[in-house]
Formats: sequence, structure tokens, C-alpha cells
Amino acid sequence: MALQDARTPENGESERDGSVKEFGQHKDYVAGSRPDLRVPVRRVHLTNGKDVTLYDTSGPYTDPQIDTDVRRGLAPLRENWITARGDTEEYAGRPPRPEDDGLKHTSPRGGLRNLDAVFPGRPRRPRRGRGGSAVSQLAYARRGEITTEMEYVAVREGVTPEFVRDEIAVGRAVLPANVNHPEIEPMIIGKNFLVKVNANIGNSAVTSSIEEEVEKMTWATRWGADTVMDLSTGRNIHTTREWVLRNSPVPIGTVPLYQALEKVDGKAEELNWEIYKDTVIEQAEQGVDYMTVHAGVLLRYVPLTARRKTGIVSRGGSIMAAWCLAHHQESFLYTHFEELCDILASYDVTFSLGDGLRPGSIADANDEAQFAELRTLGELNKVAKAHGVQTMIEGPGHVPMHKIKENVDLQQEICEEAPFYTLGPLTTDIAPAYDHITSGIGAAMIAWWGTAMLCYVTPKEHLGLPDRDDVKTGVITYKIAAHAADLAKGHPGAQEWDDALSDARFEFRWEDQFHLALDPDTAREFHDATLPAEPAKTAHFCSMCGPKFCSMKISRSITEQFGGGDGASPEEVEAGMLEKSKEFAAAGNRVYLPLAD
Amino acid sequence: MALQDARTPENGESERDGSVKEFGQHKDYVAGSRPDLRVPVRRVHLTNGKDVTLYDTSGPYTDPQIDTDVRRGLAPLRENWITARGDTEEYAGRPPRPEDDGLKHTSPRGGLRNLDAVFPGRPRRPRRGRGGSAVSQLAYARRGEITTEMEYVAVREGVTPEFVRDEIAVGRAVLPANVNHPEIEPMIIGKNFLVKVNANIGNSAVTSSIEEEVEKMTWATRWGADTVMDLSTGRNIHTTREWVLRNSPVPIGTVPLYQALEKVDGKAEELNWEIYKDTVIEQAEQGVDYMTVHAGVLLRYVPLTARRKTGIVSRGGSIMAAWCLAHHQESFLYTHFEELCDILASYDVTFSLGDGLRPGSIADANDEAQFAELRTLGELNKVAKAHGVQTMIEGPGHVPMHKIKENVDLQQEICEEAPFYTLGPLTTDIAPAYDHITSGIGAAMIAWWGTAMLCYVTPKEHLGLPDRDDVKTGVITYKIAAHAADLAKGHPGAQEWDDALSDARFEFRWEDQFHLALDPDTAREFHDATLPAEPAKTAHFCSMCGPKFCSMKISRSITEQFGGGDGASPEEVEAGMLEKSKEFAAAGNRVYLPLAD
Repeated sequence: MALQDARTPENGESERDGSVKEFGQHKDYVAGSRPDLRVPVRRVHLTNGKDVTLYDTSGPYTDPQIDTDVRRGLAPLRENWITARGDTEEYAGRPPRPEDDGLKHTSPRGGLRNLDAVFPGRPRRPRRGRGGSAVSQLAYARRGEITTEMEYVAVREGVTPEFVRDEIAVGRAVLPANVNHPEIEPMIIGKNFLVKVNANIGNSAVTSSIEEEVEKMTWATRWGADTVMDLSTGRNIHTTREWVLRNSPVPIGTVPLYQALEKVDGKAEELNWEIYKDTVIEQAEQGVDYMTVHAGVLLRYVPLTARRKTGIVSRGGSIMAAWCLAHHQESFLYTHFEELCDILASYDVTFSLGDGLRPGSIADANDEAQFAELRTLGELNKVAKAHGVQTMIEGPGHVPMHKIKENVDLQQEICEEAPFYTLGPLTTDIAPAYDHITSGIGAAMIAWWGTAMLCYVTPKEHLGLPDRDDVKTGVITYKIAAHAADLAKGHPGAQEWDDALSDARFEFRWEDQFHLALDPDTAREFHDATLPAEPAKTAHFCSMCGPKFCSMKISRSITEQFGGGDGASPEEVEAGMLEKSKEFAAAGNRVYLPLAD
Repeated sequence: MALQDARTPENGESERDGSVKEFGQHKDYVAGSRPDLRVPVRRVHLTNGKDVTLYDTSGPYTDPQIDTDVRRGLAPLRENWITARGDTEEYAGRPPRPEDDGLKHTSPRGGLRNLDAVFPGRPRRPRRGRGGSAVSQLAYARRGEITTEMEYVAVREGVTPEFVRDEIAVGRAVLPANVNHPEIEPMIIGKNFLVKVNANIGNSAVTSSIEEEVEKMTWATRWGADTVMDLSTGRNIHTTREWVLRNSPVPIGTVPLYQALEKVDGKAEELNWEIYKDTVIEQAEQGVDYMTVHAGVLLRYVPLTARRKTGIVSRGGSIMAAWCLAHHQESFLYTHFEELCDILASYDVTFSLGDGLRPGSIADANDEAQFAELRTLGELNKVAKAHGVQTMIEGPGHVPMHKIKENVDLQQEICEEAPFYTLGPLTTDIAPAYDHITSGIGAAMIAWWGTAMLCYVTPKEHLGLPDRDDVKTGVITYKIAAHAADLAKGHPGAQEWDDALSDARFEFRWEDQFHLALDPDTAREFHDATLPAEPAKTAHFCSMCGPKFCSMKISRSITEQFGGGDGASPEEVEAGMLEKSKEFAAAGNRVYLPLAD
């Protein structure tokens, strides 16, 4: 539905010219202080001549003036910004190995199983902070610097660059942006910004392919995913990730432990710091923007889960628990945490400190194991910040409504307001196949109370891997939760979208309702299922009530008669009411205006 | 999936005998104090030999031992209970008229348009309180009487009959049960009971037929609807309602104003008390259990809506507003309210005092118009109770999360804790086609805070009339919201369902998970989409992670090794941990047990 017709929006911020008066929507950009700082937006042009500008995560794919090709990858938008800072250096990097894709080193065939799958785009060398220095947005913010990335998100969020810098500097927000992922359009995660949504993708040993994962990523961002986590666990992990990264306009997160475990044939006890570190570097060189690290699963916490109803449900958590038990040593993620910090800081990889002991059932919510780990994450958050690593904290899980707020309040207190990044939470266990809804309820609430980013849950949660439709349903559900939270938090500008849609609804501007809808396609399809004829979209009644019964119609008639919206005082409204009611009678007491009206 | 094999559940309350050990589920009954008091339940038989008993709204349709026929209607379960009280009398009743079905009295053809549509079941004469006396459950409760209906719901809710009586007596709960609707299985609505869900059905001038509406009713109750509102507005309103009532195991609600308006050809100004009263009696004689009455829309409140974003969105509210304006008189529903009370009390029709001025957009939430009407509903609630009429209060609508609690708190205060019955609320306006979700979020929250019954919203809200699939999606979404609220309220027994499902999940009992799921069919279908083979349902890994990576699997192994669930003290657990970790190593450090395990 992107319009080829460019026009100048009323706010005059557009870079484009043109004047074709048309309704619909198109991709547009808001200009920053320099030519290469153009922040994408979705402009919705209403039939009443007004414009609504919406946040846009869809990347260059929705810009008809840009040719995209998944085999080439996206343009490296941030490359000049990064090099201009002069604090990074290219280096040879770690050569890809067969085991990066889950192939045994001892394989007689050797090499990658499927050479065709190797990403064919432009050759690149990895980059890192010169001499291993911290090149994180946090390090810059602490020094008082406002990076181009910060200015970009300031435009995107409608705040000042200084505010962005300050929120990052105190650790209340993160701007995930690996120096090896220049393709991203910068975004920010923090409770004083719009609530964000993450979509998980990833193949597994059981199903799905590289192509499907890249498609899911672009599909998820088309519907509004702000970040994407690649949770692949089967073969071709390295190669899948390369395709995803080179084509992603949003930050990509991973759980390096999954790949590290593949490298030791799934034997947790054979994991060690060297293998893990090697995997982290491999992924950092590729450009992973944030990494989930389950460093809070300590040996002494494992017995706390033994009498839970559902034990440890986090994959990362259970792998580390098994390692700790097998070795009866403290987790290598914990003992090597400072070294890990230095690596992440030198690429600007953001920590997502994983909640490996999150509750997997209503019965286990807010228990000792969960909160013990949270306290450890609070310690690690301080260490990470001291090393200049941006950090967010992951949260549950399965939590009944009355126990949700305690989660945010504790996390905010213990982790010094570091961004909270929660999975759901699911507010009941009884509805497999509907866990996008059981969790959408909890997600909206926890975001209202302070969660900065919501990890989506799809209808397939607990049952299987999400397909394309599930990804869309999950993202839409979580965009609803995020926006409901933005409204409840009183985020400036959030209600403008609701108001525009409600105005369109009240004025029977069906086309505008569709274009403003979170999912225009489905809204139109549902409407057409009842009243398929094109004229119905401009008819002054809705398909729910039919022509004679539409309350919006009657009510609009009242508004028109009694001076609503024209700035009249209450007294004038009262006076108008008396006068107009006489007109009402004189006009034959017709409650319903003719359809032709 | 109902099993023909009957067996004796462990709790010994079943009336049936038999002993075939089988998993699955079947319709069962819990016996009360007399042979004709049998409360339906859904028994889920788990593969581990345990039983879970769930609330069942599906009526005789799911009992393989009962032959149902929609042309005959359901058996009049309550008939003997009603007649035994000796306080009602049959009478000739109001003969059906062509205009009851929306046919003009002046029609040259006369009579009903489609005689085949007339309900063919057993002939019946209407019944009412002898001499117009109040025969309501409220009147009985106030006199200290425990009716069979009260005992029935006590068994159904797991409380004492005295508690049920007391909650009804003070007006904190209603038991909607028109003496002319003996087919229902009694249920109760009140904040100290399980949260209930209503599903709306109803044809309109635009679409749908009698058959479809009856099917939607049985379909809605199959998935868990506790009551059904027939909101038909087109032709055949009377006849459609007769079919629905005679076949409904749950209380039926209506908005009599809709039918009254049809009788005056849609001209609101031609409505009057006599036409309305005639319609109420017509519907009361048929057996409608509760009626939405928009008696709180007063003339002076109408101008308060003129500058709203979406004016009046309630159909009933806008009709009454138009009437008030046309006549410049106070609403006849308000001026004749006491007379209306006496009519309703003599049939035991429950009031659902409608919120005609509910907000239709985020912008209009909690405004002066809405709360002015609520205060009037508070007055009317007192009048209704004084006349012995059971009463609940309807609530919004579109409300952002941070304004929801105020709605319940005010309603509970103003209306003396009368049951609150809310539509959603929708927490954002931006997602047409997903308003089951925007509202499911608000519904869960408002129910947690005290709403007694939730009126569902389907994906078609704002766009069209719901079809069968939409009805199911709406009901399931609202059952989730209601159950999440039951959990958050700490309702005794609510968590048992979650626990049973989570146990099954942790122990990889896939069949048990499906049978315990709110929607077993979809859960099974989603699971099979990834791992279609039958053995996968007993495989010790889930389809999300694959055989090597399943965290549940690892965690279960930890539980087995470290004494979870066997009543061990923390010290014993610690000791066991050390010992078992040695065994772990001795067993070859195998993290994953063989699949055959």
C-alpha cells in the first residue's frame, strides 16, 4: 500500500517534494542534522487532509525507492558514523569453522555442508575498539558525547539528544548497536521511551530453513518488531545468523550458549569458558547487537528449583545448571564475567542478562530461586556498567496478575533501573495455543509498570515453532500490549494514534480506519466479509448494526446539532441544544439521516 | 472427545459407576441433596490416574446419554422447582403479533413471514408471580430461603448454600433465572464467585439467520460462555429468541429497546412507555433472564457527550438520547422505572442497568458523561433492589489501563457492590480486527479488581458481525481473562487447573496437556503441525527445542536427582545434591537421558 506519490507533510520535516493529494500511507523520512541522518516513519494520509506519523520498524523494504536484495544485504547506514569516530579498527577476525554451523570437526566431508548457503554479499572484515577499548554508546554517553545514533533515536522518539544521552549514561536505557552491524536503524530501549517489542525467530534441529528465518525476520519487522532474536539451535547457525544480520534493519539478539553447546555435541558438561568465549567473539564479529547471558544461574541456586512445579524452563538456565552440577563449580559465565564484559564493550554488544531461573508455571512465580538469581543479576549489572557495557535484564515468564508488579519493582530497585526485558508474562497456564493472549495481558501490565521491552510469545508457544502467521500474530499482539502501556504511562504523543483512528471511526471514514489500523489488511478483510461492496466503505453506517441502527450515526447527528467540537462554551452548547431540538422536530423528527448523506 | 466409558472419580461424588481406566474427558455430574439436582462438570482423566474437575457450561449437548433436538428444545430442568414453590401462576399471556418479528401490522400478507421458522417444541403458557408478586431469587434470599437454584450454584462454585443466599440477599450477586426459562442450569454472577463470561449473538438487518444464531449460542456455551445475549435487530427477533431460549442451558439476556424500536419502524421519537412495556412483557413471557435497560441516560447528560471524540457509542444509549432530545422530556425508562421493576420482579428477570454513555474511545474514558450516568445507575440500583429485582450494572467500553481501576472502585462504591458487568474494556483504539485482544487485556485487569462478569469482544468488533470462528475466539480469549482474574483474586481452587496442566507439561504428558487445555483441539493441531507423528505426543522432548535441547527435559532430570517433591528438607536436598552429582559423573555426565526413557 506504499504510495509512489510523494507529498510534503504539513509538519514540513519531510525531505521530499510533491503535492498529489491522496489518501493512504507511504514510507517517509524525518531529517536530522546531517544528510545521512534520515529517520524512517510511516505517514498515513487521511481523507480529511490530515496526516498521522507513525513509528516505523520495517526498514528499507517498504521504501519503493530502494532496491533491496537479500543476497546483497542492506546498505551499511552507520558505517561512516562508526569510522568517523576513529576509535575502532578492522582486523583479520576469526575464520569461520565447520563447527560454527554445527558440523563435526571430524567430519570426513569437512567444510560447510551447504556452500550455496554462505552469504554472498560484500566482503567485510570485523571491527572492534582500538586496542580492545570500550566503544559502547554507554562509554560515549558517560563522556558526555552525543553520537549520531543518539541523535537518530532522539528524532525517532521525539525527545532531545541530550535526554537520550543522559538516559544511556545512567544505564536506564540501552541503544544496541554492534559496530559490526552497521545496517541497523538505531533504536533505544528504556522505560522513558516507547515500549519496544522483540520477536524470536530461529531454526531448530527439528524444522525450518535459512530462507524461512530471513523471511520471518523481515516479516516481523514489517509488523512492528523493534528487535529480533535469532534463537537457532540446529545446523547452519552461523550461516543463518549471517543472512539475518546482513538483512536486518533492527538489532539482532542471540543466546551464544546455544551455539556453544552445539560445538560440544550437546554435552553441557563439556562446555568451558574458552569455547564460550570463542563463540561470543564469533558472533560479535558478525554483528550481534545483544546477547543473552545466563550468568546469574549459580551453583547454590540450582537446588532451589528442585521442588518447583516446572523446574528450570529456560534453556540457557538449564544448560548452565547442568554444567554447574556436573562440575560442582561456579558457572564459568559468572567467574569470567569481567573478561566477558571487556569483550562485549569492545564491539558494543549489549548484555541481556538472562533469567535462567524464571518461573515456568503460575505455581513457581516469584519464588526464592527466581529472586535469588535477580539479586545476582543486580550485582552483574553493576559490573557490566563499570566496564562500559550496556545492559538490560531479562524477566519472566509465568506470573499471575497480582504478582506482576513485584517483579518490576524489585528489578528496578535491584538493577538500578536498567531496562527490564520480559517474556510475557503469561498470566495463566491453561491455554496452550493462546499463549500470545495469556501473555499479552501480562505484557501490557508489566510494560505499564516499567518494562522497557517485551519479548513476544506466539500462539505456538509450548507447542511448536512459529510459522509466518504465528510471527505476525505474536508481533501484533505485543504491539497492542506495548501501545496500551504507552497510553497508560502517558507517553507524549501515544494517544494521537488512537484519537486519529477514533475520529475516523466516528466520522465513518472507513479507508482511514483501515490505514490507521495496526493491521490494515485484516481490518479491511474482516469488514469486507460482512459488507463486501466497495460503497460500504464510505457508507454512513457500520456493518455491526446495519443502516437503521448505527449508534455512531445517531451520535454524530447529536454532535452536529449541539455544537460539539467547535469550541462552544457549555452555555452555548445548552442554548444550541434547545434551539436545535426544535429544528430536530421541524425536520420531521428524523433520527437517521438518509444514507446518501 | 466425550468418553462413553463412565468411571468413578476419586472424590466419590459421581453418580455413575464403572471402572474402565482410561484417559480423556467426559461429562459428569455432581449430586446435590436431591435426585434432580445434578450439577454438570467436565472430568479430565489424566494418564497418571488423577482426575481434574472443571466447570462446565456446555449443557446437555455434551452428554452422550442425552438426546438433544433443537426442534424440541431442552428439558425444563427447573420446572418442578418453580412449581413446587407455589408462588407463580400460569396465564394466557400476550399472543405473538406480526410486529414482534419486525413485520408491519399493515402488511397485506399479515402473519409471520416464515411460518416454518416458528419454534415447534412443546406448547407452554407463560408464568409469573401470583398476583404480580416478586418471585425473584433476591426476594427469597431476603426472606432467608435457600432455593434449589441456590443450592445448585453452591455445588457448582464449591461454596455453601448459605453463602450463596447471603451474597444474593445483599445484592452482591445475581442468579438470573426467569421462571419462564426452566431449561437453564443455574449459575451465579458476583465478585465472590468465579468470574463469568457473556457472549453476544444476534442477527441484524444486514446478515445472519435463526439457525446461525442458535448454533452460535450452543457453540459459545461449548467453549465456556456463562450467559448469552441475543442482540438481534433485524427481522424475526421474537422467533429467533424463542429458538435460542428453548435450546439454551445458560441464562439469556436481551436489550428490549432494540425490539421496541423495530416496532416503531426505527423511529426513536415514536417510542413510548407502552410499546416498551409491551416488549418487556413479551420477552419476559418467553423467558429472557436478564435485560439491559438504559435508564440512566438522562436528558441533561446528553449535552455532556457533544464534545466527545466518539459521542454515544451504545446503541441503546443513542436511541434514548435521541428520544429525550426529540421530546425534551426525561427518559420514559427513568420515569417508569418503578413500574418496570414490578414487572421484572414478577418473572424474576434480572436488571442489567446499561451504560448508555460508556466511552467509545480512549479519549472519552472516565469523563463526566460516563460517571454522571453511573451515579444515576447507583440510584436505580437501590430502587430495583427495594422492589426485589436482582440487578447488575454494565460498564465500559474503551479505557486505557491506568483508568480502569477507577471504574470498578467507583461502581462498587456507588452501586453498593452490585455485580459489575463490563464490555472489555478495550485498552487501545488502534487495533481493529484484534479487539478481542485489546479488550482481553482490560477485561483481565477489571475482573481482577472486581468485575463479576465480562462481556466478550470478538475480532470482528467495529468491523462486522461475528461468525462461528469469531465467537469461539472471543469466548476463549475471555475465558483466559476470567481465569487469569480468578487466579489473581486467589479464588479457591482456581490454580488447581494451572497446576495440573503445568505438571503434565513438566512430565511430558502431551495427551494430558491437550485434554486440560482451554481449547484442546487447537493445542493438538498446533503441536501436530510441527511434530505430526503420534509418538511425538509421548516423546520426552517438546517440539520447540528438539530432542537435544529441551530445557524441561534437563530440568526434570535435576528434579529426579535432587529430591524435588518428595518432602525432603533443604538440608536433605543439599546432601542429596552432593551425592547425586557424583552419580551424575559416574553415569557418564549425560545431560540428556535417552529418548526411550
